[in-house]
Amino acid sequence: MAKKKIAIIMGSDSDLPVVEKAFAVCEEFDVPYEVHVFSAHRTPAQARDFVTSARANGFGVIIAAAGQAAHLAGAMAAGTTLPVIGIPVKSSTLDGLDALLSTVQMPTGIPVATVAIDGAANAALLALQMISIEDSELAAKLDASRAKAEEKVLAANRAVEEKYNH
Amino acid sequence: MAKKKIAIIMGSDSDLPVVEKAFAVCEEFDVPYEVHVFSAHRTPAQARDFVTSARANGFGVIIAAAGQAAHLAGAMAAGTTLPVIGIPVKSSTLDGLDALLSTVQMPTGIPVATVAIDGAANAALLALQMISIEDSELAAKLDASRAKAEEKVLAANRAVEEKYNH
Amino acid sequence: MAKKKIAIIMGSDSDLPVVEKAFAVCEEFDVPYEVHVFSAHRTPAQARDFVTSARANGFGVIIAAAGQAAHLAGAMAAGTTLPVIGIPVKSSTLDGLDALLSTVQMPTGIPVATVAIDGAANAALLALQMISIEDSELAAKLDASRAKAEEKVLAANRAVEEKYNH
Amino acid sequence: MAKKKIAIIMGSDSDLPVVEKAFAVCEEFDVPYEVHVFSAHRTPAQARDFVTSARANGFGVIIAAAGQAAHLAGAMAAGTTLPVIGIPVKSSTLDGLDALLSTVQMPTGIPVATVAIDGAANAALLALQMISIEDSELAAKLDASRAKAEEKVLAANRAVEEKYNH
Amino acid sequence: MAKKKIAIIMGSDSDLPVVEKAFAVCEEFDVPYEVHVFSAHRTPAQARDFVTSARANGFGVIIAAAGQAAHLAGAMAAGTTLPVIGIPVKSSTLDGLDALLSTVQMPTGIPVATVAIDGAANAALLALQMISIEDSELAAKLDASRAKAEEKVLAANRAVEEKYNH
Amino acid sequence: MAKKKIAIIMGSDSDLPVVEKAFAVCEEFDVPYEVHVFSAHRTPAQARDFVTSARANGFGVIIAAAGQAAHLAGAMAAGTTLPVIGIPVKSSTLDGLDALLSTVQMPTGIPVATVAIDGAANAALLALQMISIEDSELAAKLDASRAKAEEKVLAANRAVEEKYNH
Amino acid sequence: MAKKKIAIIMGSDSDLPVVEKAFAVCEEFDVPYEVHVFSAHRTPAQARDFVTSARANGFGVIIAAAGQAAHLAGAMAAGTTLPVIGIPVKSSTLDGLDALLSTVQMPTGIPVATVAIDGAANAALLALQMISIEDSELAAKLDASRAKAEEKVLAANRAVEEKYNH
Amino acid sequence: MAKKKIAIIMGSDSDLPVVEKAFAVCEEFDVPYEVHVFSAHRTPAQARDFVTSARANGFGVIIAAAGQAAHLAGAMAAGTTLPVIGIPVKSSTLDGLDALLSTVQMPTGIPVATVAIDGAANAALLALQMISIEDSELAAKLDASRAKAEEKVLAANRAVEEKYNH
Repeated sequence: MAKKKIAIIMGSDSDLPVVEKAFAVCEEFDVPYEVHVFSAHRTPAQARDFVTSARANGFGVIIAAAGQAAHLAGAMAAGTTLPVIGIPVKSSTLDGLDALLSTVQMPTGIPVATVAIDGAANAALLALQMISIEDSELAAKLDASRAKAEEKVLAANRAVEEKYNH
Repeated sequence: MAKKKIAIIMGSDSDLPVVEKAFAVCEEFDVPYEVHVFSAHRTPAQARDFVTSARANGFGVIIAAAGQAAHLAGAMAAGTTLPVIGIPVKSSTLDGLDALLSTVQMPTGIPVATVAIDGAANAALLALQMISIEDSELAAKLDASRAKAEEKVLAANRAVEEKYNH
Repeated sequence: MAKKKIAIIMGSDSDLPVVEKAFAVCEEFDVPYEVHVFSAHRTPAQARDFVTSARANGFGVIIAAAGQAAHLAGAMAAGTTLPVIGIPVKSSTLDGLDALLSTVQMPTGIPVATVAIDGAANAALLALQMISIEDSELAAKLDASRAKAEEKVLAANRAVEEKYNH
Repeated sequence: MAKKKIAIIMGSDSDLPVVEKAFAVCEEFDVPYEVHVFSAHRTPAQARDFVTSARANGFGVIIAAAGQAAHLAGAMAAGTTLPVIGIPVKSSTLDGLDALLSTVQMPTGIPVATVAIDGAANAALLALQMISIEDSELAAKLDASRAKAEEKVLAANRAVEEKYNH
Repeated sequence: MAKKKIAIIMGSDSDLPVVEKAFAVCEEFDVPYEVHVFSAHRTPAQARDFVTSARANGFGVIIAAAGQAAHLAGAMAAGTTLPVIGIPVKSSTLDGLDALLSTVQMPTGIPVATVAIDGAANAALLALQMISIEDSELAAKLDASRAKAEEKVLAANRAVEEKYNH
Repeated sequence: MAKKKIAIIMGSDSDLPVVEKAFAVCEEFDVPYEVHVFSAHRTPAQARDFVTSARANGFGVIIAAAGQAAHLAGAMAAGTTLPVIGIPVKSSTLDGLDALLSTVQMPTGIPVATVAIDGAANAALLALQMISIEDSELAAKLDASRAKAEEKVLAANRAVEEKYNH
Repeated sequence: MAKKKIAIIMGSDSDLPVVEKAFAVCEEFDVPYEVHVFSAHRTPAQARDFVTSARANGFGVIIAAAGQAAHLAGAMAAGTTLPVIGIPVKSSTLDGLDALLSTVQMPTGIPVATVAIDGAANAALLALQMISIEDSELAAKLDASRAKAEEKVLAANRAVEEKYNH
Repeated sequence: MAKKKIAIIMGSDSDLPVVEKAFAVCEEFDVPYEVHVFSAHRTPAQARDFVTSARANGFGVIIAAAGQAAHLAGAMAAGTTLPVIGIPVKSSTLDGLDALLSTVQMPTGIPVATVAIDGAANAALLALQMISIEDSELAAKLDASRAKAEEKVLAANRAVEEKYNH
């Protein structure tokens, strides 16, 4: 069984600073991913072509990041029955609320798995968790990463306790 | 010069009670219109086919109504350089704010002319006003309608003045 | 490879009218599911016990529905590296905005795949899509269902076109 | 048939940095435009005089930009049956939400075609799209510009693909 | 010195159920008032004529009630240096937030004294308080009314104390 | 050590249907309470008199419920260094958001312990928890009540499991 | 008839940068004003003493500025039947929305004339407009100031027209 | 009777700049406190262990600070019947609204005493006020501190009066 790839799509290359955190997560867990810039409104055909053949091309999960009236994740979700994760990207007005509502409030039939505003790292983690359903090795890695994150909080706790509690 | 038609698209036939007010306006002004149910997410190909040939098929303006993460107007706007008017439709949560932001906050390059939440009559009027740019007969009809609306307010004013002012 | 089960957890049995739509979807696609009432705040130990052994017990996805300061999905997500889907449930104040933000705005490391307010059917569909990553039979069923949904919109379109366009 | 002009009105010259993006679009498409500073509240007579004679004076579309309790677009719309496009301008509080709602939530009879907060470029594009209804040359230019925008996204995509996909 | 009149303007006679509470207050305090239906958008000339001559015609305060993108109070305020009180009226979407922001967020130079959403009784009281600045008899009546309101709360308190405290 | 009383203050007797849930909690735990109707704006002197002598009169906690621009809890908090709990009460507009922000966003120096909109039962429970800091008998009762609540969720869980899981 | 004074009250001297714009307006119109720092929560007695004797002490209008859960204007309004103008002050979170709702959403009986967030200049202008009801000299000055403001917009218009229209 | 300690918990050590203000208050009043970093999602077991034994370990109040989907205070509250105070921490999007709603909108049975966004000093004061219910010495200190705060406002008032009133 070949490893499923993750597709990370952004609506504009100006979203790169937010989205790059997702690349790092995929690399940390050694899961193959591909990055694309597809616009729901300017290159809908390319977006559509990509997503309708995504399953056949070995993808397991699609991540889509967009701001403002963020339609990209929904447009992706309309073209595949693979799970699509939406990252609402904060822009210069309304503090990300527009992108959040445009991404999460999808009508019945076409769900988008929405993460927090600018939550690119979590989007990648969520994709890995989806793949881990049938990949016990990846599941073990994710569990180990959680243990490491826990240890980091415990260390922060020890540092804080040492500094402030006497 | 043949009269341009108005396309009135809704994302679901459950939007009919809201959208019907647009039909009435078109009929009042005797401007040809067509009604379609296209879903940005479930019938994107039909939506796309319709809108990319809309100008060639004699349409002048596209009106699109949708609720929740309302992508329909934006998807229409991506497929034509005809003006697209978006009607955000109020659904059972968030009082229409999700549809409003999903419709109006379009990225640079693909504008949607957004009207008020559930504002179907105004969407149709706005479409007529666009057509009136080069149709002086329609412009005259619109002016006459404004005069009638003014007269209605004046009559309401007289009734209220009579009842309350002594 | 045994079929992965879906766990559908609600924070209170008063959420049943919303959550039941998820059961119907699972049944339609013949995917095994289990229903539980666990409260993040009143039965945290049971919730924790369930979720930490969920993967071992054959679950593939966890769905969690809760209202107000909706912590249930996040608490579930903290206890497993399986994907957790959050359904924000609208309650008597704030129109669901509190549950939406409490569910979606998760900190880095613990994602929750959030769907629309009261979006139980979509939560189940999203769970099935996750399972379909490695289940081509289910993927085919989901594709077929999309085709049926498309046909339903096309039929609605025909009905509307017939009624309104002459 | 003389080319219709676009009027670009702002409520205050402090709105210039936002509104200038509309000038650039008009120039790019070689469509004549005029700029004015009219205040709905401080120079209502001038605003009214301008707009009531706008059609007679060769204008096809009015663009109006204002912030806070943004009444300018609505006041313009009340004085003409030409289409009026409203640009809600973000000010120092409330992140543009006040201007958006004041512009878009127009009562029945007097529509304002509202674009995104600070969306001046889109306002101009929308105006051009309206004029293009009866101007096939401009329509062709708009289509060409879309093709260029598409090419730009495709280029960005190629650059990103090259950098990140191996 | 003749008693100054209060003008109570509404944008539509559909606002009457909200606005009528203002009439009752004026009658209770025996202050002359006049009621009019003027629309900022449909009868702007009448609105303007009324308000620019309001001071000369013996008015002391203008009250203006409107919903949605509520421009009426601002339009009134632009035409007079008499104080203008704005009542934001709740309509079928957005729970009155649109009318509140459209009324209160006025730009520098043209203030509107805004009261609570649907706060017509308070609008009338505020108008009376303004007139009371130079009308000691009315001031005394207002003080007496406050005393009565205080007594009413004290009575409610006694009733509640009696019922619940033992 | 005499048992400390809880004061339950509401801004208007129209708040009774919301506030009564607090009475029931006090009675269930057999903690003495007193109910009063004090208005921050109409009977400020009585409110002030009550609260400045509350500690001397044997009160341990003040609960204050009010809607709209809900100042009551803050006004109470300004008059005592006893803890004051605020219940934001939902009124006919803005879904309780106004009362929530008016109650919780207190400036430094004068905290109000704010509970959920219409959260009267929780306000009373919170008051009991405060008193339980030095009252181990009450602490035990609260723990027992939690156990009962847990049992209720467990029972609901069993019923749901029985009905839906096979 | 002695000239009525305006009281300008702020909840904290940290509000001075916002409130100072009100001083400038009073000085421009040569209307006597007094400035005080009274806190609704920390010096309620002084606030109360001031406001209950404000009318007797020759004040005509009270302006009150406060941020967050802004109770100051409401507390002032509770102590006098003079008109009270509220300035909601933006603080470091929520962009002024908390102060706006806490100021404007007053319950029936105690109105606060609310201006825009940070709208201190407008608060002073509104106070002057109230005083002008019975002060024709001030009314004339206000009218002259409006004419000057109009001239300023006309000049800005001329400059913009010159620069951009050819 | 040993002095009860205050526990100050934060969800991440990045919250320290906000939370430190609470330490200063505890030190000013010489009330013992302990600081910990516990994450509701990454170290739930440690969080739970701490809080379930908090009462036995001599704590009287728990303060919990967290941002985004802030579950920490609620998770703490679920594990003890001691009062839990929640500090919603503002993060990079949504201006603190997400943390506020996630903290305050707790379901019946598990209250969280919520203070203002970033209101750490008030959280500590509120904790002290709770402890003061049975600690008259602390009550006296709190009263003295209020008197000092009052004096500070009076001094600010004198300075402002001197500078601006002549």
